[in-house]
Amino acid sequence: MRGTVIHAPGDIRSETLDDPKVIEPTDAVIRTAVTCVCGSDLWPYRGAEPVEAPHPMGHEYVGFVEEVGSEVTGLRPGQFVVGSFATSDNTCPNCRNGFQSNCLHREFMSTCQAEYIRIPNAAGTLVALDETPDEHLWPGLLANSDVMGTGWWAADAAQVRPGSTAVVVGDGAVGLCAVIAARELGAERVIAMSRHESRQRLALAFGATDIVTERGEQGIERVRELTGGIGADSVLECVGTAEAMRQALHSARPGGSVGFVGVPHGVALDGQELFFSHVGLRGGPAPVRRYLPDLNERVLSGRIDPGKVFDLALPLADVAEGYRAMDERRAIKTLLKP
Amino acid sequence: MRGTVIHAPGDIRSETLDDPKVIEPTDAVIRTAVTCVCGSDLWPYRGAEPVEAPHPMGHEYVGFVEEVGSEVTGLRPGQFVVGSFATSDNTCPNCRNGFQSNCLHREFMSTCQAEYIRIPNAAGTLVALDETPDEHLWPGLLANSDVMGTGWWAADAAQVRPGSTAVVVGDGAVGLCAVIAARELGAERVIAMSRHESRQRLALAFGATDIVTERGEQGIERVRELTGGIGADSVLECVGTAEAMRQALHSARPGGSVGFVGVPHGVALDGQELFFSHVGLRGGPAPVRRYLPDLNERVLSGRIDPGKVFDLALPLADVAEGYRAMDERRAIKTLLKP
Repeated sequence: MRGTVIHAPGDIRSETLDDPKVIEPTDAVIRTAVTCVCGSDLWPYRGAEPVEAPHPMGHEYVGFVEEVGSEVTGLRPGQFVVGSFATSDNTCPNCRNGFQSNCLHREFMSTCQAEYIRIPNAAGTLVALDETPDEHLWPGLLANSDVMGTGWWAADAAQVRPGSTAVVVGDGAVGLCAVIAARELGAERVIAMSRHESRQRLALAFGATDIVTERGEQGIERVRELTGGIGADSVLECVGTAEAMRQALHSARPGGSVGFVGVPHGVALDGQELFFSHVGLRGGPAPVRRYLPDLNERVLSGRIDPGKVFDLALPLADVAEGYRAMDERRAIKTLLKP
Repeated sequence: MRGTVIHAPGDIRSETLDDPKVIEPTDAVIRTAVTCVCGSDLWPYRGAEPVEAPHPMGHEYVGFVEEVGSEVTGLRPGQFVVGSFATSDNTCPNCRNGFQSNCLHREFMSTCQAEYIRIPNAAGTLVALDETPDEHLWPGLLANSDVMGTGWWAADAAQVRPGSTAVVVGDGAVGLCAVIAARELGAERVIAMSRHESRQRLALAFGATDIVTERGEQGIERVRELTGGIGADSVLECVGTAEAMRQALHSARPGGSVGFVGVPHGVALDGQELFFSHVGLRGGPAPVRRYLPDLNERVLSGRIDPGKVFDLALPLADVAEGYRAMDERRAIKTLLKP
């Protein structure tokens, strides 16, 4: 089958790989409907994470069940499924607590930019739809498998409540989906921090009420001006850098909450500063599986359309161009069609 | 009047000071009923915080209104009042959000180990009781002004819920009050970490269900054993050291919450570690004023008795011995009677 392999920073190749097989009796193999490139794929692509040896890429997917292991219940070949970037058995204590992305049997998906994908813990990871959805809904469902689920988690972790004010730090696909989530969870005011016109437009289309183009101290100042001088109830940190975290913590009001969903790179927090801010902080890999049934329903009903974050669609074979376009910020997010 | 002054680490003196007066029209002056020594008073006493120049001490108090400024509403001389260690106007946006200890006009009290005390922002800071309570209730009400309010905030910030499991790190007066709070908020299981027998006894009397005497890695391991291998829903960090924070973060389950209420000294947090733990974190100076009406009611009705944390009562003149006893761990907390 065709799959994607990174050989070194900047060196992404579409190659012929062995077809994946059911290895564990709890596995399934799916035929990919659509997959995509994630902002986090750019960390190794840009050399910000080491590439020790060539390895497959991709962790976002929707597809059709092709084969299931002998212990997989509730799934049958032909079903259209949406999964999470993190597998889960959906029965362990952490899963029952709603933190499926911390499942005791979690594996992070990493081979999804391909025609076929092996899914460990398939029964607990995949959510099957009643019928195959119309193709125009596939991008939205694909977004649910990571960026929309992660944006939702940002809003959830930042305790967005009806009538509240939320700030979204980061205008990548996750940040844009976080705008959707904040609105869906009832935020009256959603302030999107963005310096890029095309992303600002999408943020507004997703329900942002204000755009802040400033960064750093000026950005913090601007958010304060917009929030009665004290800061926002909720801040959704969707980047993962020290600068973004600082922006987030200083944009929250005393007693406000920050949800941080970008994998932190070089982020250190001072205990005493956090203490006197009264700001609550929670982050982590999004428990996408918890949200999938609800998010799929919202996409299928047309209530939300996170698929709009895909502003470039390419054949899977052209994956290298997909990475390049995102790296050069010509594209927000690249959809790949097998 | 008689008051308390620290001259240098280890050098606490009871001295004759000027009687406090109403300075601002929003001030009140109260005659102290009882006051006490706080664990945080030991930071300068032990030299862990600098003593630049001699200054008064004390931030916990209950007393009788002696005099009110011209703009003070709702208070009249003779009333028995309970206040917070942090003053608040109780009308600013942060106060309205329930974070009175981050009031835009906050002052930290610092002259309360004395016969009379000036209270800034008196109308928003003091809670008057309907009648003068029986003297045996004074210690409990005094505890509300700081340690019980802070223990409650630890449980609130750690999101203790009915039926949950809570761990309390720290067996000082705040930690012991945190045990009361966790139980009152419905925790089914409260694991108190303590190595001191007298404190263990009090923790059990306050409703702790388990005592863990181990610290560090062994303490973390023991908590895990007691919590199905995953950790506790809520952890109440009532110390403020790096070791205690580490203990707290590693005792919480994925998706659990840590409330940290000891002023952090040398605490740094790694963003990525916090991220992958899924643990939520919130701390700060307790918004005692928010809880006072409720806590006073619980004390007056006899439902809780946080006054038990006072295991030494001395005349105000003997304040130096009160510090010494706490420093040497001969006393949990010293009550001072003017």
